Amino acid sequence: MTTPLFDKVALIGIGLIGSSIALNIRDRGLAGEVAIATRRPETLKRAEELKLGTSYHLDPAEAVAGADLVILCLPVGSCGAAAAAIGPHLKPGAIVSDVGSVKAAVVSAMQPHLPGHVHFVPGHPIAGTEQSGPDAGFLELFENRWTILTPIEGTDPAATERLVRFWKATGAMVETMTAEHHDLVLAIVSHVPHLIAYNIVGTAADLETVTQSEVIKFSASGFRDFTRIAASDPTMWRDIFLNNREAVLEMLARFSEDLASLQRAIRWADGDTLFDLFTRTRAIRRSIVEAGQDTQEANFGRLKPRKDPWNEGSAPGE
Amino acid sequence: MTTPLFDKVALIGIGLIGSSIALNIRDRGLAGEVAIATRRPETLKRAEELKLGTSYHLDPAEAVAGADLVILCLPVGSCGAAAAAIGPHLKPGAIVSDVGSVKAAVVSAMQPHLPGHVHFVPGHPIAGTEQSGPDAGFLELFENRWTILTPIEGTDPAATERLVRFWKATGAMVETMTAEHHDLVLAIVSHVPHLIAYNIVGTAADLETVTQSEVIKFSASGFRDFTRIAASDPTMWRDIFLNNREAVLEMLARFSEDLASLQRAIRWADGDTLFDLFTRTRAIRRSIVEAGQDTQEANFGRLKPRKDPWNEGSAPGE
Repeated sequence: MTTPLFDKVALIGIGLIGSSIALNIRDRGLAGEVAIATRRPETLKRAEELKLGTSYHLDPAEAVAGADLVILCLPVGSCGAAAAAIGPHLKPGAIVSDVGSVKAAVVSAMQPHLPGHVHFVPGHPIAGTEQSGPDAGFLELFENRWTILTPIEGTDPAATERLVRFWKATGAMVETMTAEHHDLVLAIVSHVPHLIAYNIVGTAADLETVTQSEVIKFSASGFRDFTRIAASDPTMWRDIFLNNREAVLEMLARFSEDLASLQRAIRWADGDTLFDLFTRTRAIRRSIVEAGQDTQEANFGRLKPRKDPWNEGSAPGE
Repeated sequence: MTTPLFDKVALIGIGLIGSSIALNIRDRGLAGEVAIATRRPETLKRAEELKLGTSYHLDPAEAVAGADLVILCLPVGSCGAAAAAIGPHLKPGAIVSDVGSVKAAVVSAMQPHLPGHVHFVPGHPIAGTEQSGPDAGFLELFENRWTILTPIEGTDPAATERLVRFWKATGAMVETMTAEHHDLVLAIVSHVPHLIAYNIVGTAADLETVTQSEVIKFSASGFRDFTRIAASDPTMWRDIFLNNREAVLEMLARFSEDLASLQRAIRWADGDTLFDLFTRTRAIRRSIVEAGQDTQEANFGRLKPRKDPWNEGSAPGE
């Protein structure tokens, strides 16, 4: 990157996503200056120790002064208040974006606080780990992952295009859609799976017939993967569920309906229904591996099989 | 291992578990001879090409002749018929075991067919990947994983002890408990998580508002991990659910009850209930990592963070 895409970027919030964006800007030269703002002095100090920006601020209004790109890297529930704080200080023509996992609610919360002279292009990089904080960020987080932009109707296409170029420079693939459609897609691929993972880990912890130490000891067979998901940041996820309520409740209703039908199949020993579903889901896994969205290594590469393990045509068990 | 633990082992079925046991016997010298039996000629041929045994049989009765350890490495639903086939041909004093993920039903299915002069010590190595077939096996599959043995009341402790030594020689940790308790533990740590994973992948595939290609494209955020689990062997899992019905239905009822309460919390914007659960589940994850049952690498090591990522004390987002 020879010419930076932006003169000055302001990052409000410097957790996993914010620090990963900061590393991309720094190491790939995407902007001349990076102002970092965060609420807690100890987090700000850590960001400075990690050399994530060029200036550090406890007041977001101060950070956005003169910035031509402002990205809110905050839990969804904090975006409205942050927009109110920075609104009057935004430079005319600035692009304002965010990284929230929910879009319609963030748009409603932020838009009233943004002046007419800025371009509001909400965004969501579908990337993350179960870790949080400024130390969790890394340069490759967005590589080969999708970032979804949900520009408001009437937004200048040139502003959207400029933000697309920014995200592509981090290695991300970019797609645009409406905020409402984004929220439905994410409800099924992310929000409901997380809720279910949190839920089963909670159910297991509350059993009397099986002790918690047994659950921990014998977790290797499926449950363990749920606990990884259920270790995700509590604040962020609380905000997601409260802010994508309608879509989550709709998808959850379908999930529960389908689960009730599986429960019935088990009760009535209807093996065919189970077998048909289990065969269908295997094909979807194959598509995801083919689409490059996951590795085909067994057990996420935790274990090392001897050779090509995607042995789809083989006979099961015997 | 200088003296083999057994003169002759017979493995009935040579899928992921069977072939991994065979590699352990071969590469660690745990037995003098290994007879392999499987129903399909092409699978048997593949086992021979991989040099997994010392003799190869389509008839399990032929394989068990003279064996002092017989392990059924079959889907749970096939164990009864296999026991009937081998029962009359077992050597007096032989130890008979299996690797099924369900124990009480397997005991009921097998025991009537086993002569009084053998030692029946059912077993379950809690190890596996989503792959199947004789090519999927590898030497390290059982290493640092638990194998549970559920000896029948009145079993000669010397026989159980001999099988414990065999499993420990593969690198496994071994625990004994009743078949009934095993089935409850596995229902919550394995069977219900698998059912839920299968279910949500099925739900996602059936949506009209979100296309299947969108589900595949944007799967990275949680859903993807469920698809790995939901790619597990359909026959094996159908048999597990049909054979551990009571325990699975009990755990499922609790799961659904808890999920209904989370659904209510979302509907009524009860953020505290969500936050409390999400904090509690994070602690359980930490215990699993501390117990050595999983790695703390972010995203199963799919992505590489810069430094120690288990940044538990850090502030979320902002």
